[in-house]
Amino acid sequence: MTTVKIIGATGYGGIGIIELLLQHPEVDLKALVAREEIGKPLSEVYPHLTGFCELPVLAADDPAAAAPTDVVFLATPDGVGMSMAKDELAKGAKVIDYSGDFRFTSTEAYADYAGRLGRNTSHGAPELLGQNAYGLAELHRSKIRQSQLVGNPGCFAVSCILGLAPAAQAGLVAPDSAICDCVTGVSGAGKKVSPTFHFPARYEQMNAYRLSGHQHVCEVEHELSTLAGREFRITFTAHVVPTCRGIMSTLYGDLTKPATEADVIALYRDFYADSPFVRIFPSSAAIGSLHVRGSNFCNLVISVDPRTGKLRIVSYIDNLMKGQAGSALQNMNLMCGFDETLGLNRPGMYP
Amino acid sequence: MTTVKIIGATGYGGIGIIELLLQHPEVDLKALVAREEIGKPLSEVYPHLTGFCELPVLAADDPAAAAPTDVVFLATPDGVGMSMAKDELAKGAKVIDYSGDFRFTSTEAYADYAGRLGRNTSHGAPELLGQNAYGLAELHRSKIRQSQLVGNPGCFAVSCILGLAPAAQAGLVAPDSAICDCVTGVSGAGKKVSPTFHFPARYEQMNAYRLSGHQHVCEVEHELSTLAGREFRITFTAHVVPTCRGIMSTLYGDLTKPATEADVIALYRDFYADSPFVRIFPSSAAIGSLHVRGSNFCNLVISVDPRTGKLRIVSYIDNLMKGQAGSALQNMNLMCGFDETLGLNRPGMYP
Amino acid sequence: MTTVKIIGATGYGGIGIIELLLQHPEVDLKALVAREEIGKPLSEVYPHLTGFCELPVLAADDPAAAAPTDVVFLATPDGVGMSMAKDELAKGAKVIDYSGDFRFTSTEAYADYAGRLGRNTSHGAPELLGQNAYGLAELHRSKIRQSQLVGNPGCFAVSCILGLAPAAQAGLVAPDSAICDCVTGVSGAGKKVSPTFHFPARYEQMNAYRLSGHQHVCEVEHELSTLAGREFRITFTAHVVPTCRGIMSTLYGDLTKPATEADVIALYRDFYADSPFVRIFPSSAAIGSLHVRGSNFCNLVISVDPRTGKLRIVSYIDNLMKGQAGSALQNMNLMCGFDETLGLNRPGMYP
Amino acid sequence: MTTVKIIGATGYGGIGIIELLLQHPEVDLKALVAREEIGKPLSEVYPHLTGFCELPVLAADDPAAAAPTDVVFLATPDGVGMSMAKDELAKGAKVIDYSGDFRFTSTEAYADYAGRLGRNTSHGAPELLGQNAYGLAELHRSKIRQSQLVGNPGCFAVSCILGLAPAAQAGLVAPDSAICDCVTGVSGAGKKVSPTFHFPARYEQMNAYRLSGHQHVCEVEHELSTLAGREFRITFTAHVVPTCRGIMSTLYGDLTKPATEADVIALYRDFYADSPFVRIFPSSAAIGSLHVRGSNFCNLVISVDPRTGKLRIVSYIDNLMKGQAGSALQNMNLMCGFDETLGLNRPGMYP
Repeated sequence: MTTVKIIGATGYGGIGIIELLLQHPEVDLKALVAREEIGKPLSEVYPHLTGFCELPVLAADDPAAAAPTDVVFLATPDGVGMSMAKDELAKGAKVIDYSGDFRFTSTEAYADYAGRLGRNTSHGAPELLGQNAYGLAELHRSKIRQSQLVGNPGCFAVSCILGLAPAAQAGLVAPDSAICDCVTGVSGAGKKVSPTFHFPARYEQMNAYRLSGHQHVCEVEHELSTLAGREFRITFTAHVVPTCRGIMSTLYGDLTKPATEADVIALYRDFYADSPFVRIFPSSAAIGSLHVRGSNFCNLVISVDPRTGKLRIVSYIDNLMKGQAGSALQNMNLMCGFDETLGLNRPGMYP
Repeated sequence: MTTVKIIGATGYGGIGIIELLLQHPEVDLKALVAREEIGKPLSEVYPHLTGFCELPVLAADDPAAAAPTDVVFLATPDGVGMSMAKDELAKGAKVIDYSGDFRFTSTEAYADYAGRLGRNTSHGAPELLGQNAYGLAELHRSKIRQSQLVGNPGCFAVSCILGLAPAAQAGLVAPDSAICDCVTGVSGAGKKVSPTFHFPARYEQMNAYRLSGHQHVCEVEHELSTLAGREFRITFTAHVVPTCRGIMSTLYGDLTKPATEADVIALYRDFYADSPFVRIFPSSAAIGSLHVRGSNFCNLVISVDPRTGKLRIVSYIDNLMKGQAGSALQNMNLMCGFDETLGLNRPGMYP
Repeated sequence: MTTVKIIGATGYGGIGIIELLLQHPEVDLKALVAREEIGKPLSEVYPHLTGFCELPVLAADDPAAAAPTDVVFLATPDGVGMSMAKDELAKGAKVIDYSGDFRFTSTEAYADYAGRLGRNTSHGAPELLGQNAYGLAELHRSKIRQSQLVGNPGCFAVSCILGLAPAAQAGLVAPDSAICDCVTGVSGAGKKVSPTFHFPARYEQMNAYRLSGHQHVCEVEHELSTLAGREFRITFTAHVVPTCRGIMSTLYGDLTKPATEADVIALYRDFYADSPFVRIFPSSAAIGSLHVRGSNFCNLVISVDPRTGKLRIVSYIDNLMKGQAGSALQNMNLMCGFDETLGLNRPGMYP
Repeated sequence: MTTVKIIGATGYGGIGIIELLLQHPEVDLKALVAREEIGKPLSEVYPHLTGFCELPVLAADDPAAAAPTDVVFLATPDGVGMSMAKDELAKGAKVIDYSGDFRFTSTEAYADYAGRLGRNTSHGAPELLGQNAYGLAELHRSKIRQSQLVGNPGCFAVSCILGLAPAAQAGLVAPDSAICDCVTGVSGAGKKVSPTFHFPARYEQMNAYRLSGHQHVCEVEHELSTLAGREFRITFTAHVVPTCRGIMSTLYGDLTKPATEADVIALYRDFYADSPFVRIFPSSAAIGSLHVRGSNFCNLVISVDPRTGKLRIVSYIDNLMKGQAGSALQNMNLMCGFDETLGLNRPGMYP
């Protein structure tokens, strides 16, 4: 059995991977580490796990938290992973980090990311950059298989990159024309309470936010630029609406040459032929975020507006699954040599 | 007192205007006509009106439904208004129609609209076109004041036109670059049940719909083309999410010349200086659809993306108020010579 | 014009009364006092009030907060009112307090209340007890009219007392048999964020809480005992479900003598003949909390279970209106000699 | 592999068991039969199953629908099962029926049930009564194991019976004192659209319904009477609130003798010692319906009100799981000799 440790176990990112690992046939969950709820059994923090996980929540400085495991998930915010990864790698662990710390493979790319956010542009573990892989399996499957350190992608980024990658690679859309209009459910903001996500202030509230810039833009542009072979800039807007789970991203781009919906569908099906978690639908399909809830799938609905010459892709994921814990497990499967879909081959829950 | 009759009284469009009229100081509600619930007092159909409105629902062929009133609201679908307006106008009524029947003032413009929808392009009352006004007060206040027949605008159209009108008139955005990405609450689809709006199928569902084209596009393009002085085409996407009320439209366009957010705010404030129901906010304001719920306001949040040279306006309305009944009452006020805000000067309900 | 000051202006209790007062024809809102958001115009804290209320939020020690007004609303938690009321009364104000401080008219009754909650049983302003009235107009209309100090009732208490009062007075139910099974929307917990009311943790969550006892039980028992002329004990359970507004209380009691639904309806209609905000419905009526949302009404649905000999009343209110700000304004109207319904005679908003 | 057929495959009851069976290691799903959507692959009706279930929906008279299988689920309304069960049993199938048809094991008991509902009191297959078992495993595990025909219990009944069974058997509550105050999510009403469950009419709506009597009362009284050894009558109220999944039942009864919460907890833990899907919690536990969502668990929170001498149990289930498909699979496991928890041992999904 593969032994696993979770750092940041009590947030939504942590509990998401724990739910999956408890049902994974090859995993033995060994240790849960967090900054809050220290000493409580996890089932007291998350009562739906009563009878499933009675492991105690450990403080980071608890000796039991230091015991080596085969895999470590760092379900932690920016800056934490770069301070912990080296040590875990040295103990022989495969490490999957949820933050922006290992989404870029050069100090230059990281500095661009950090700079846009107004943060310190020096990476805390520059020697690890280059060894790491960007954890979007659909684009980097081989590299992830060979890597000990993977930077799990941002939820919006998964949604936008999967929706635009085939078009970007094929040169089908003008690079600076792309607009990513993204709508997320509230769980994307995590477990931390805030006046914005207080039920009475949210149940009938829709709003755009961070209009001045979102941290996921950088990785979208970086991946699409690589695929396009030239700089690819996006106009990005994040919105939040009163669902719990789900991201719906409507992605627009100016077609560089005439293309029908059928042409684009063929291109996308070909691009994702070996990717079991991407499903392509025509514009007539009645598809929405509820059809990927609780699953690791990305549903892409393809359309073309011939009047204005625009490609329009609507991309649906569960932000906590393909947008976070599901991708993390998919990465673990690849890194450990398991079938990519092990423990993930589920249809979700409806209604 | 101004006497009023409602045709289509039992739908959300009908009940919306009835709630407003019951609290309007100059109105005497005389007759309610519908196709269902005939004979019941309205308070039996809508129990929240118990004690407020015991008028019976009349069938269209009930003699009492034919009695003349000063104002008639046709809260009815496409095709009904054009068959009834002439008769009501002949009785001396001022008529406000909710459908697409009188949103265009020429047979050519109507034919373009109907043709896009694949319908009969002949208008049923062509002699009335030209006498009518498009009922968006912020653009056609004077004409509405002088008109006996007003075509109330579509809810998405209100949201998009108010959001783009100042920029279109100023030539600030390239006409074919505009993208209208619109998200509506479920009440926009009305009172009629459907599997799509069944609570269990909707509470966690976000989806785009009618990707092949929406009926409100035509009036948006028509109004913006008039303002721009040249053809103005939009790429439009409608989405629905699990709120009851609200439209959030994110509107993008390529800037034709450099402009800062402050420039655009100044332009918009100037354009709407005489429009009491439009409020302009900077991109840093924490504004959402809940802040216009139950009110007749349109909130516009202004931003500019200097990296990609795009203008981005987020436009919020309550689809049942400024998007429907509120605009209808605003039109009635103008047509009757009342203060434009009479019975509408309310902040909405929070939370 | 009657001048008004609000202490505790920025919570849901404060904003609720402000929304009402802004539309009240006899009121001039003079000062808003709170502990947070000091110095901001209220419209910045609650953007839906942009253009309606630009008064700044004052700190309690701001000299402007001390200026006398005709009416003071103390929208504050237990303990605050008893420290402030005397001073405001001395300035000539009529005072309406939202907390438990003035819901009881003797030191003994207050001590019982405070003791059950494990608090200090000494009242901070015992000399005021006896001058005050319990602010449920349907039971204490005359006394409220003559009082300068009113203790606004608890939201659950309004719901339970109005539902059981006629039966208690008529001796129709066995006093110790009464069960009050109450379900509230989330706004009942106020504006303060908590993990329990974080949207993702609440949207599909229903739960009972405070099973060991709720602070509103005492006033329910006190009022019903007075009406019954003997001790009246209730078994009370509070639940919270994912709505924003509304309380639905299902009230059970053993019938002391045979009675049909029609008998009970007659009794209730008679009891509430002079109470404009109580509406009585038979068990066949399709009534729910949405039919009182945004209004000051209490809807009571009457049924009798002949198999088990139980009376069952389902009582619906909007917890923020009849359960709080609406009752507060109703009290102000009575205290000031206005019509009881002034500024409150609205049907609410649907849907 | 055990072959399975579903009659009534496209409703929520059908899709619920299909989701479970697709992940069950011993099952081969063979045929799906329904009255609507005939000929479509199931994944077109439920797009979340794309790639998981492409079986076509068969009409009842399709020859392929008649092929024998090891197990047949009749996810059909009252009256259908009694007309089909005999034939399927004759083909050697084990039959699990979702309706009231086989919840009673004598013609007398069935007649009581049907009579209360105002229906024909003659059972359509009386020769099968007595062979069948009531499918609540926690009470009838042995009989279910030996039976070929099981009547799956009603969702409210599961919730109430599990909550009161230990107390009823122990004579702890006075039989006619029991009150079952039940709150359900909307999915309990199934897939069929109705004005009551239209999203805008439901999102802020809480209401009691069928105050004149609910069809699940009869099986609750029948089971509790058997356990108590004397007639056990309940007062039952059904409510619906805006969640999708979940039943929260608050169950009250007059204690026949003094008992502490600890006493009751001990009694309940003992009663359910061999029942893996029932979890007992003290009144201090913060437990709600979200903690059983998507799982087959029933959570029981125990409390005693010493002031009024009442036992109070709050019972939580997922109405579509333990309340329907989960119990159905649990029954299948028992009938087929599998481990009772096979394919059901999952914690659900949070948040």
